[in-house]
Amino acid sequence: MKKLFSLLLLFCAIQLAAQTKDPKDTEVWEPEPRVVTPGTMGSPPSDAIVLFDGKNFDEWITVGKDTKPGWKLEGGVMTVAKGAGDIATKRSFGDCQLHVEFRTAAVVEGEGQGRSNSGVFLQSRYEVQVLDNYKNRTYSNGQAGSIYKQSIPLVNACRPPGEWQTYDILYTAPRFNADGIRVAAGRITVIHNGIVVQHNVEIQGTSEYIGLPKNIAHGNAPIVLQDHGNPVSYRNIWIREL
Amino acid sequence: MKKLFSLLLLFCAIQLAAQTKDPKDTEVWEPEPRVVTPGTMGSPPSDAIVLFDGKNFDEWITVGKDTKPGWKLEGGVMTVAKGAGDIATKRSFGDCQLHVEFRTAAVVEGEGQGRSNSGVFLQSRYEVQVLDNYKNRTYSNGQAGSIYKQSIPLVNACRPPGEWQTYDILYTAPRFNADGIRVAAGRITVIHNGIVVQHNVEIQGTSEYIGLPKNIAHGNAPIVLQDHGNPVSYRNIWIREL
Amino acid sequence: MKKLFSLLLLFCAIQLAAQTKDPKDTEVWEPEPRVVTPGTMGSPPSDAIVLFDGKNFDEWITVGKDTKPGWKLEGGVMTVAKGAGDIATKRSFGDCQLHVEFRTAAVVEGEGQGRSNSGVFLQSRYEVQVLDNYKNRTYSNGQAGSIYKQSIPLVNACRPPGEWQTYDILYTAPRFNADGIRVAAGRITVIHNGIVVQHNVEIQGTSEYIGLPKNIAHGNAPIVLQDHGNPVSYRNIWIREL
Amino acid sequence: MKKLFSLLLLFCAIQLAAQTKDPKDTEVWEPEPRVVTPGTMGSPPSDAIVLFDGKNFDEWITVGKDTKPGWKLEGGVMTVAKGAGDIATKRSFGDCQLHVEFRTAAVVEGEGQGRSNSGVFLQSRYEVQVLDNYKNRTYSNGQAGSIYKQSIPLVNACRPPGEWQTYDILYTAPRFNADGIRVAAGRITVIHNGIVVQHNVEIQGTSEYIGLPKNIAHGNAPIVLQDHGNPVSYRNIWIREL
Repeated sequence: MKKLFSLLLLFCAIQLAAQTKDPKDTEVWEPEPRVVTPGTMGSPPSDAIVLFDGKNFDEWITVGKDTKPGWKLEGGVMTVAKGAGDIATKRSFGDCQLHVEFRTAAVVEGEGQGRSNSGVFLQSRYEVQVLDNYKNRTYSNGQAGSIYKQSIPLVNACRPPGEWQTYDILYTAPRFNADGIRVAAGRITVIHNGIVVQHNVEIQGTSEYIGLPKNIAHGNAPIVLQDHGNPVSYRNIWIREL
Repeated sequence: MKKLFSLLLLFCAIQLAAQTKDPKDTEVWEPEPRVVTPGTMGSPPSDAIVLFDGKNFDEWITVGKDTKPGWKLEGGVMTVAKGAGDIATKRSFGDCQLHVEFRTAAVVEGEGQGRSNSGVFLQSRYEVQVLDNYKNRTYSNGQAGSIYKQSIPLVNACRPPGEWQTYDILYTAPRFNADGIRVAAGRITVIHNGIVVQHNVEIQGTSEYIGLPKNIAHGNAPIVLQDHGNPVSYRNIWIREL
Repeated sequence: MKKLFSLLLLFCAIQLAAQTKDPKDTEVWEPEPRVVTPGTMGSPPSDAIVLFDGKNFDEWITVGKDTKPGWKLEGGVMTVAKGAGDIATKRSFGDCQLHVEFRTAAVVEGEGQGRSNSGVFLQSRYEVQVLDNYKNRTYSNGQAGSIYKQSIPLVNACRPPGEWQTYDILYTAPRFNADGIRVAAGRITVIHNGIVVQHNVEIQGTSEYIGLPKNIAHGNAPIVLQDHGNPVSYRNIWIREL
Repeated sequence: MKKLFSLLLLFCAIQLAAQTKDPKDTEVWEPEPRVVTPGTMGSPPSDAIVLFDGKNFDEWITVGKDTKPGWKLEGGVMTVAKGAGDIATKRSFGDCQLHVEFRTAAVVEGEGQGRSNSGVFLQSRYEVQVLDNYKNRTYSNGQAGSIYKQSIPLVNACRPPGEWQTYDILYTAPRFNADGIRVAAGRITVIHNGIVVQHNVEIQGTSEYIGLPKNIAHGNAPIVLQDHGNPVSYRNIWIREL
């Protein structure tokens, strides 16, 4: 009888336990994220495709030609050579994390859009403006960190002429349906020198100097760096496909 | 007559020009983004609120008490003192960019969730997990870079024990309507050691060890750092309100 | 002994149960959604603010004046009276679900933008175009169901002239920060005659006939219906604040 | 001379015009949205795939078998036959607009989750709950209009037992990367009897009765209607691929 009683006690204890929620219930074990070794001091993460490490133009061609870029390559840095044309990656990309370092000219020349103008084009179409806007006013939707002629940066985070600057970009490509109508706009986050200047912004369409953005269906496409005739320099460019 | 003819020619030329679109049409000059001086080598941008610069606990209190944090402060670094409790900022925040540097213990102790466990809570409720997951398996939605028990990080970007690591966080607070129903989830982007691990992810609700996330209407609230009983260190914490 | 054995069996059964996750763990009971009685055959839901039920202009004024609208009111229908001006709700709104029924002129006059042109403006600024585009071509970003001069509708879902049509609109207002910079674009979903034509689209800024959308910080604002000089009719207009 | 003067005047006038922005600059003519004839009184739009028009089960099979559904078909209406099992469309779908009409049992039986329980599964995995919650309390994240055990509806928009009700659903499928990690959650808008109850909500993962939502990479998949043992009826089901 005594035994029966203690068994009943046990029974109650178990029931109580059964009613208690278990922290294990909200654990999710799969999938396990793969390991990536982060970079140090600007070096790329282990899973990045290095687009430029200062050694050569192996990942690049001149836009519109199938030739090696005519940009200057010196001291681990590439610099726009006026007239050499835009350069594009050989590979095509869609959704990605892109790291770019750039340097505007130490000797200030020109003003407004004329001062160290260049640009980083996602999918060859959507431009994150590169410009020296350190104490240099231009239209807000055309300054450094803007989605060119579309989205004003949240703040002006430019470093002075001649200093290295960074763009860390998170990019989601637009989607088009079978009618060729864009059903989801592209989205972009841009961190300029560690400061968010575009925060999950919808891209209206192609970057156009004249007229409105266009939306014509497309797939993956190269990253393009612009020759706008000014000696802007680039180094340490890498990309991770998302 | 000849003069008239040339004037007519001019007239036509002008009309042509009138039909040409003008690049100025797509310039937007207002508002002008305010200037922010970016930091260098981890120093905060000029518009950041510095929450911890290694000198004191002026911006912090112990959670649940109104007392100065009992964490260790040494060499510009603060370290969890087991049992001293979670600490919170005196100020409250909503949408923000948050930079945090943390270091897991150089001497490895424990495993799974027991190894250098801590956490950064946005609005005192939503946890970005801090944990030593360098060659330390735990449930995927509970590892470093996870939104604790909600969102698995895209990759495992941990540095080895004893090394400084960074979280750069973009956070948009949830919105609630007059019924107390959440009409827009919070959203978060987390960059861990320079690698995106949460990309514009919706936060399901409060971080819970047991049971489901909760969604109870709230306003701005402090950032909280967790005392989970392990000697995790922090330094260089700053925030920008968005 | 036999009793003991069966108790042990019971014990095992219970332990098994204790290890099984409980469906109750993922039940959320609070908050309880409030009850709304849906409408029937176009009548408004019980929690809607009825903006026009065919009886009077009590909820409306002429824009720019503080006068009763000069539009025609007949048979439960209001119709643009050319030159009477745009009309606005007396109340201001932000996030909302808006139901509007409209009828283009049975007798077709004009073409392109000249045929039964009107518009529904959210927050007095962001226009969902009203136009007779039944076999009437105009620019794609200006046809019925477009966000005027910003977003082309996914399809052309127009009914023939003289038939009643519906817009069911889900609208989230833009948010601006203390700098007056827009930190979140407005978002809109438009269902035209039961067919989605705008699917969670970001609004670029104010609807402009000439030039680009503008983004100047604002709060809640009235719904406006446009007098574009064409005899477009409206009925059964209601709104729910979200 | 006088002529010359008037020509110069003209010249100035034209120049002025040239400086004025042209409304044509913000017209976009391509692509032209294709024409869709909207339905009337519940009939499907011209571009919809009709999944059920009351005549037959041609578009459906029993889940897990390759057999014709065992549900009742009578008077243009199909009704769950207890034990006949869930039914699925033969075709698979991704992003879509889905219209479903359902009727809970006129004779009220059971309570809570036991009263006219059924469900509409997007991509065979993500359930919009069907239930008679007219004066019938259950857990909030399990009532009609919920994303089952994930998202509480904004309001309770149920019609009384025995009346036809509608779900109008806008659905965007989740996206997975090559690692099998979900890089974009699915998104859903649900309009219940004309009232928005889910507004662009992220779907956490699969609908689970016990335990947490799961996220395992998948492609397009059938729409499924649930046999939960209660005689819920369906009619007029159509889908448009987005």
